[in-house]
Amino acid sequence: MHALVFEGPGKRTWEERPVPTIQGPTDAIVRITTSTICGTDLHILKGDVPSVTPGRILGHEGVGVVEEVGSAVSTFTPGDRVLISCITSCGKCDYCKRRMYSHCRHGGWILGNRIDGTQAELVRIPYADTSLYRIPDGIDEDALVMLSDILPTGFECGVLNGQIAPGDTVAIVGAGPIGLSVLLTAKFYSPAAIYVIDVDDNRLAEATRLGATAVVNDAEGQAIQCVMNLTRGDGVDVAVEAVGTPEAFDTCQSILAPGGRLANVGVHGKATALHLERLWDRNITLTTRLVDTAATPMLLKVVESGKLNPAELATHCFALDDVMRAYDTFGNASRENALKVILRNVA
Amino acid sequence: MHALVFEGPGKRTWEERPVPTIQGPTDAIVRITTSTICGTDLHILKGDVPSVTPGRILGHEGVGVVEEVGSAVSTFTPGDRVLISCITSCGKCDYCKRRMYSHCRHGGWILGNRIDGTQAELVRIPYADTSLYRIPDGIDEDALVMLSDILPTGFECGVLNGQIAPGDTVAIVGAGPIGLSVLLTAKFYSPAAIYVIDVDDNRLAEATRLGATAVVNDAEGQAIQCVMNLTRGDGVDVAVEAVGTPEAFDTCQSILAPGGRLANVGVHGKATALHLERLWDRNITLTTRLVDTAATPMLLKVVESGKLNPAELATHCFALDDVMRAYDTFGNASRENALKVILRNVA
Amino acid sequence: MHALVFEGPGKRTWEERPVPTIQGPTDAIVRITTSTICGTDLHILKGDVPSVTPGRILGHEGVGVVEEVGSAVSTFTPGDRVLISCITSCGKCDYCKRRMYSHCRHGGWILGNRIDGTQAELVRIPYADTSLYRIPDGIDEDALVMLSDILPTGFECGVLNGQIAPGDTVAIVGAGPIGLSVLLTAKFYSPAAIYVIDVDDNRLAEATRLGATAVVNDAEGQAIQCVMNLTRGDGVDVAVEAVGTPEAFDTCQSILAPGGRLANVGVHGKATALHLERLWDRNITLTTRLVDTAATPMLLKVVESGKLNPAELATHCFALDDVMRAYDTFGNASRENALKVILRNVA
Amino acid sequence: MHALVFEGPGKRTWEERPVPTIQGPTDAIVRITTSTICGTDLHILKGDVPSVTPGRILGHEGVGVVEEVGSAVSTFTPGDRVLISCITSCGKCDYCKRRMYSHCRHGGWILGNRIDGTQAELVRIPYADTSLYRIPDGIDEDALVMLSDILPTGFECGVLNGQIAPGDTVAIVGAGPIGLSVLLTAKFYSPAAIYVIDVDDNRLAEATRLGATAVVNDAEGQAIQCVMNLTRGDGVDVAVEAVGTPEAFDTCQSILAPGGRLANVGVHGKATALHLERLWDRNITLTTRLVDTAATPMLLKVVESGKLNPAELATHCFALDDVMRAYDTFGNASRENALKVILRNVA
Repeated sequence: MHALVFEGPGKRTWEERPVPTIQGPTDAIVRITTSTICGTDLHILKGDVPSVTPGRILGHEGVGVVEEVGSAVSTFTPGDRVLISCITSCGKCDYCKRRMYSHCRHGGWILGNRIDGTQAELVRIPYADTSLYRIPDGIDEDALVMLSDILPTGFECGVLNGQIAPGDTVAIVGAGPIGLSVLLTAKFYSPAAIYVIDVDDNRLAEATRLGATAVVNDAEGQAIQCVMNLTRGDGVDVAVEAVGTPEAFDTCQSILAPGGRLANVGVHGKATALHLERLWDRNITLTTRLVDTAATPMLLKVVESGKLNPAELATHCFALDDVMRAYDTFGNASRENALKVILRNVA
Repeated sequence: MHALVFEGPGKRTWEERPVPTIQGPTDAIVRITTSTICGTDLHILKGDVPSVTPGRILGHEGVGVVEEVGSAVSTFTPGDRVLISCITSCGKCDYCKRRMYSHCRHGGWILGNRIDGTQAELVRIPYADTSLYRIPDGIDEDALVMLSDILPTGFECGVLNGQIAPGDTVAIVGAGPIGLSVLLTAKFYSPAAIYVIDVDDNRLAEATRLGATAVVNDAEGQAIQCVMNLTRGDGVDVAVEAVGTPEAFDTCQSILAPGGRLANVGVHGKATALHLERLWDRNITLTTRLVDTAATPMLLKVVESGKLNPAELATHCFALDDVMRAYDTFGNASRENALKVILRNVA
Repeated sequence: MHALVFEGPGKRTWEERPVPTIQGPTDAIVRITTSTICGTDLHILKGDVPSVTPGRILGHEGVGVVEEVGSAVSTFTPGDRVLISCITSCGKCDYCKRRMYSHCRHGGWILGNRIDGTQAELVRIPYADTSLYRIPDGIDEDALVMLSDILPTGFECGVLNGQIAPGDTVAIVGAGPIGLSVLLTAKFYSPAAIYVIDVDDNRLAEATRLGATAVVNDAEGQAIQCVMNLTRGDGVDVAVEAVGTPEAFDTCQSILAPGGRLANVGVHGKATALHLERLWDRNITLTTRLVDTAATPMLLKVVESGKLNPAELATHCFALDDVMRAYDTFGNASRENALKVILRNVA
Repeated sequence: MHALVFEGPGKRTWEERPVPTIQGPTDAIVRITTSTICGTDLHILKGDVPSVTPGRILGHEGVGVVEEVGSAVSTFTPGDRVLISCITSCGKCDYCKRRMYSHCRHGGWILGNRIDGTQAELVRIPYADTSLYRIPDGIDEDALVMLSDILPTGFECGVLNGQIAPGDTVAIVGAGPIGLSVLLTAKFYSPAAIYVIDVDDNRLAEATRLGATAVVNDAEGQAIQCVMNLTRGDGVDVAVEAVGTPEAFDTCQSILAPGGRLANVGVHGKATALHLERLWDRNITLTTRLVDTAATPMLLKVVESGKLNPAELATHCFALDDVMRAYDTFGNASRENALKVILRNVA
């Protein structure tokens, strides 16, 4: 089969690889029908993720059809259409029992990281019973593939951790695919206002189209003042960091009302200043989280009910064997006005 | 009457002052029977709290007897024995309706700060109906005076915010009166282990006496390693910062298990580094809080039931008119082995 | 002034009454601009509510303008436009401090019950600071008057108590004004499906218009089977009883999935059978509640944000001095296709 | 091997049975070292549980040593000491993912019910990875065997569902092993008072010994009045039904304060009257639950920490091959002053 392979910092190839096979009784082999590229894949290509070694097939998002299952897999049989979770869960360890699958002792984020991933014609999924989800009939795969990672990430790390509630005012810093996933799923709880902050007007236009109450271009550092004005000086109930920089985190700290929640979603590479001299008596809650994908069954229900269409986040579509060009497009997201890039296995 | 008056940085006097009088319909005048000194009072004396101006009577903790009430006070009548909350609550504003009395639009921490306080023979309490608590009969005033501030502070900011639950492992960094209040009230939830960290062996001995599972002297910077060893490398479920320094906060960050809660109780004067590069994917929750004293009715019930005796935190007792000497003792807490210093108005 | 007065079972008059005056320092006098009639008022007229004695002015819902305030009222001044809560809250007692205003030791549901109510040109509101809400500018009074009682009732007793969450399946038994208020506010949480059950096709058509996923006419006792079919045999996550009869409660018991919540909103006059022989091992939660109106500030924000327009529940409008005819219409709700009947004080 | 076998209503034998063998890849065979008898076993013997057919080996509680594991079992190996949960969990179905193991699509309460149980020398445990718990070293097996069923039942169905919190007043109706398990685990949350109601003075004496604040003998129907007196007319915050009769349930309904929680633990064979005419406006929460044993890891930690010694519930000890006599004793619990009866496999 063919696959997109990391060959060391800055290097990727679309190459022939052996077909994956069942290695343990809980494994399944899935034929990919739809996949996509994540911002994390770009970080890997830059060499920022040391756990990924050369020769690794990338990708942790995908939808497909079960080809084969190990002897202990009881939930799926060949031919079943499935959603692949970006988080592999053994279902047995102490973290899995607490539904904190992200920290599974035998799984977690391993796909396209410590084991081969989904930007390939076939992929091996360990602990298939607890890491795959049966797909409801009649739902667009472009919508479903967003449930592998970005929708649960936005929802769990941003919306649930931010405890967004009816009537709240919410600010989302960062209007990339993850920030927009926060926006889409924040609407589940009917906040009174959702403000979206970014420096890219195209992304802000997208935020408006997807339901932002107001958008703020922070190119000239006006975001904090703008949000304070929008909230009549009170600040927001919930600030969601969806960038992963000290600057974005700092904006969040500065616009939080007393009693507010700061939900960090962004991936950070360095420490940031926490202004406890201002915040110690402000009754705030700050959270971090790697997505657990515990919300995936609920998200499937909401997509099935027609109340959420995450396919709205897809801006481009390529054949899977054109994935090299898809990376070029996604790697120039701003210039290409790209959000999520669909990879369709038409083989 | 006499009162302890702040006269500018480093200066305090015990001096004659006019008797306070009813100024508004919700006021009450309370004759102090027992008061105490808080670490915050020492900060004020150092000049660290700019809202306190020279001439201010200090003190925000106390127990007493109602002398007189304004026309709109309906809960109390002269002669009632009452506990004074360190937080004044109007009961009417948006924050009070959310039970976030700390941020009351007309109150909050004002006693001994923006208005005259409790280290005096008499004190005026605005919004008396919602800022005083009737005292159950037969309970020691030394116990009750701990419910003005430090017990609710330890409980709300440390225990509730830390979401301490049965079976948890807890670390408390700081074994002063506040840290020990966290310890006393953490036991309400039957954690499996409570580790207390400090650099003062006397305070650690006190922690052991009050129920710590193990204590760690961090004088040589061994605390992080010790706690990791005690938890077999897992880290703690809850870390409570009860010092108010970047170092103590850093210890807390470093010993937290995935999914852990870091509850900040300490008063911070400067920013600290938040290690998001390590914490972004650890599913942690970090909280700050100024005490709301919303838990005071519950604490009164638990004290009344005999399940909590906060008088254990009192190490010294002075007559109120000996408060100057009481400050000397409390100001040298380590040398004097002082925790809380009781002030008894024997007049 | 004129007012609608209960004169004993079956008797009501529109008659001249003395203008209300300030009786205590926390009172306000409000000039009614908009009021409405509640199903409870019909119960009173039938003689079902023994606490209401002849001579009582009815009505516990209303919007108006403050005319005069007592000496301790600090939040409102004459001329302020206000929403009147059906629940009077002293803001001081143990229940008020727990936000359970319904059980306020000095208030609760007293308007149009133990004291004169809002179907009058003027009304006295005790504990005005904690029982009135300032009205945002530019919002339709027909929408606001629904926030006196039925919207918070539907939301608190049905939606909050039912713990409705994204992706849930919900059944509402009863499509009167309260059941439809549950429907409107259930949508705050994006359930996957909301089924509404009634025996009146007009009300079911209204439910469909307001967003029900499916409606079920139970005239021939098919509701249980229909809901089980709609849920593929699983039953619903949340069943809301909005009728107040053993039959409606029984329907709720019979359609609940394991782990489900049964939120009772209806007013019951007799005991009902609880099928513990079927439910003891089903992990269900059953709740009752008199509305606390603790959610009113949030509801005001959501109405202000444009995300909720409860004026959709108003089917008729009368001048206040035509209230006798308004009662005739509301009393024949089914024949008149009446939901809420607006009373406008055009004086 | 030998086992205690149900031979139809009223008939049980201790007889030779074939050694159980691995049937599926997730099975384990466990050699029982300690077991016990549950009240449910007596119900089975009366013929009250139709799912149990003649020939079934009884028992759903036990501690033992793993003898053999199926090919997909990864958590345990032969020789491991384990606690057997009374609830079998597949770890894969929708209910297991929600931690509602009681309703597992492939498990639930099946041991000693739909498959052979633990009152035998050996037992087959399906889904071993998610239905067994590794035992900490050095803990008494008499304590551990209480964690198979009664401790999690008391804790989850009574304490967690009752939302027992510090300062609460709690009433437990029924002082059998389950009621006393509620008592032991209610103390985790430091309620201000725990009242225990029964008609058996020996059991009430036991309740006192285990920490009840006061006990009430209801032999003459005085319980409701007594509890109302003890709570100064307020009623209790939490009432736990641990009997399983309409009368006990009715006591709970009658002593609940506004805002109270009624947690049903008892197994009910018939419907009971729910007094909605009194309760509809009392803001109560009523719960039912079959134990999920989701709390077992926490209970193991608390037992390991020394904060709970459930061996206190054991009153008698028999050799496993003397189980026929153990049933005689347990079946006459009142006369024999029996609570839990330990079965020790000394083979």
